[in-house]
Amino acid sequence: MMEQKGTTKDQGSISRRDLLRGAGAIAAGGAFAAAGGTTLVGMAEASKQAGGAIYPWKYAKIDPDKAAMVAYNNWYRNFCSYGAASGIIVPQRELVGGPWNSFPLMALKFGEGGVEGWGTLCGCLLGGSVAISLAAGHDGKPMINDLMQWYSETMQPVFKPKKPRARFKSKTVSGSPLCHISVGKWMKAEGKSLGSAERRDRCARLTASVSYKIATMLNDWADGKYKPSYTNKQSAVGITTQNNCTGCHGSDVPSPI
Amino acid sequence: MMEQKGTTKDQGSISRRDLLRGAGAIAAGGAFAAAGGTTLVGMAEASKQAGGAIYPWKYAKIDPDKAAMVAYNNWYRNFCSYGAASGIIVPQRELVGGPWNSFPLMALKFGEGGVEGWGTLCGCLLGGSVAISLAAGHDGKPMINDLMQWYSETMQPVFKPKKPRARFKSKTVSGSPLCHISVGKWMKAEGKSLGSAERRDRCARLTASVSYKIATMLNDWADGKYKPSYTNKQSAVGITTQNNCTGCHGSDVPSPI
Repeated sequence: MMEQKGTTKDQGSISRRDLLRGAGAIAAGGAFAAAGGTTLVGMAEASKQAGGAIYPWKYAKIDPDKAAMVAYNNWYRNFCSYGAASGIIVPQRELVGGPWNSFPLMALKFGEGGVEGWGTLCGCLLGGSVAISLAAGHDGKPMINDLMQWYSETMQPVFKPKKPRARFKSKTVSGSPLCHISVGKWMKAEGKSLGSAERRDRCARLTASVSYKIATMLNDWADGKYKPSYTNKQSAVGITTQNNCTGCHGSDVPSPI
Repeated sequence: MMEQKGTTKDQGSISRRDLLRGAGAIAAGGAFAAAGGTTLVGMAEASKQAGGAIYPWKYAKIDPDKAAMVAYNNWYRNFCSYGAASGIIVPQRELVGGPWNSFPLMALKFGEGGVEGWGTLCGCLLGGSVAISLAAGHDGKPMINDLMQWYSETMQPVFKPKKPRARFKSKTVSGSPLCHISVGKWMKAEGKSLGSAERRDRCARLTASVSYKIATMLNDWADGKYKPSYTNKQSAVGITTQNNCTGCHGSDVPSPI
């Protein structure tokens, strides 16, 4: 009983327009879901179900500098995942209210340090991706792909506050969305420890950089002028991947099954 | 202005009891946040702020088999992250209602394939950790650590539905919470491709396994008998890490800075 009832209540309200938009996003993003071939079916089923929570939520354009400063300051409260999400969600509470007020940001704090310090997905990308999804729904998929690529391929942190809490020299390209690699490359370049004020401020600035980037993408999307840039297709590689095979495999990259 | 207002509204309502529980959780978990030394300060500040969304949400004990079957079926709708979260959240909608009804599960779909197919954090662990956090608040921290370790060190998938949608033989130990490694080791063992029905059912069963595990932990916690098991301390290693250094570094593991 629980399963049956459950599966009719766990869907957001999705319009035909959303469905068509989502199909475009999949074509543009080309990511994992498309490999299985059921995404459109799943979405078609979802579109028939009016029950469940409102989704996505109304988005109001925000000043990317404001988003970045909210994220920067909130890193010092609850770290990266909470901070990056707050850079988008807190301004939406001010400007839109409604469902944005009901979302407990603390439920994203666990993303810190790549999930409670495990060094996996950078927490900025976890919290930031939730914020993108809440604002843009299916349209958020290419934005998340773009965010992952931009994070990995850009000299970071991009954002510097006017009054930083610590000073450091190094910017680094992580080549990866993983916390361990991103933090490790910066620590090696700067010669500072995990617990140093400099490393902490680097992560706070990176969190701010992510919220800044998200605000620019969502603002463009709200204006109807967002253009996805990520073009890799994981399905072509035959496995879910961050596209830097030789980084771990060296020259011995396995062939697709 | 926005920052100042923001930082007073982005906190959950946290009681003194939660604060004390949280301190215990940090001592037990020993993860990233503790390295910086400001977690207790951040929590103390949060405890003074009554504004913001309700957090955590009331949890009602659930049958782990039911949680697993909700997750299994929902994998076939919206994949791993959505599925694992739904295994906990959908039954709470039935039993508790209230804020659980407001949470849009679709906002977690992006976790599929380790975030839109990038192969980072297994989506089950992303969606599952959000569900733990919503239910247990700060007490969820050791559960997330335990979940990450159990996921990585156990022959998976543990859960098998009575009527599986596909049949396969292999169970594998990932040694990692990363999707790419977890999926890749299983694909190699079973000799099946990413797009195969077998690989898809393996991930659906793993999603069900994660929801089952979370339900058992939350039920024990609700009964006051949950005992954390994860004892590693990332701060001792000097970097955020999944504790399998030689897996990528070989014998050339860097020294802490």
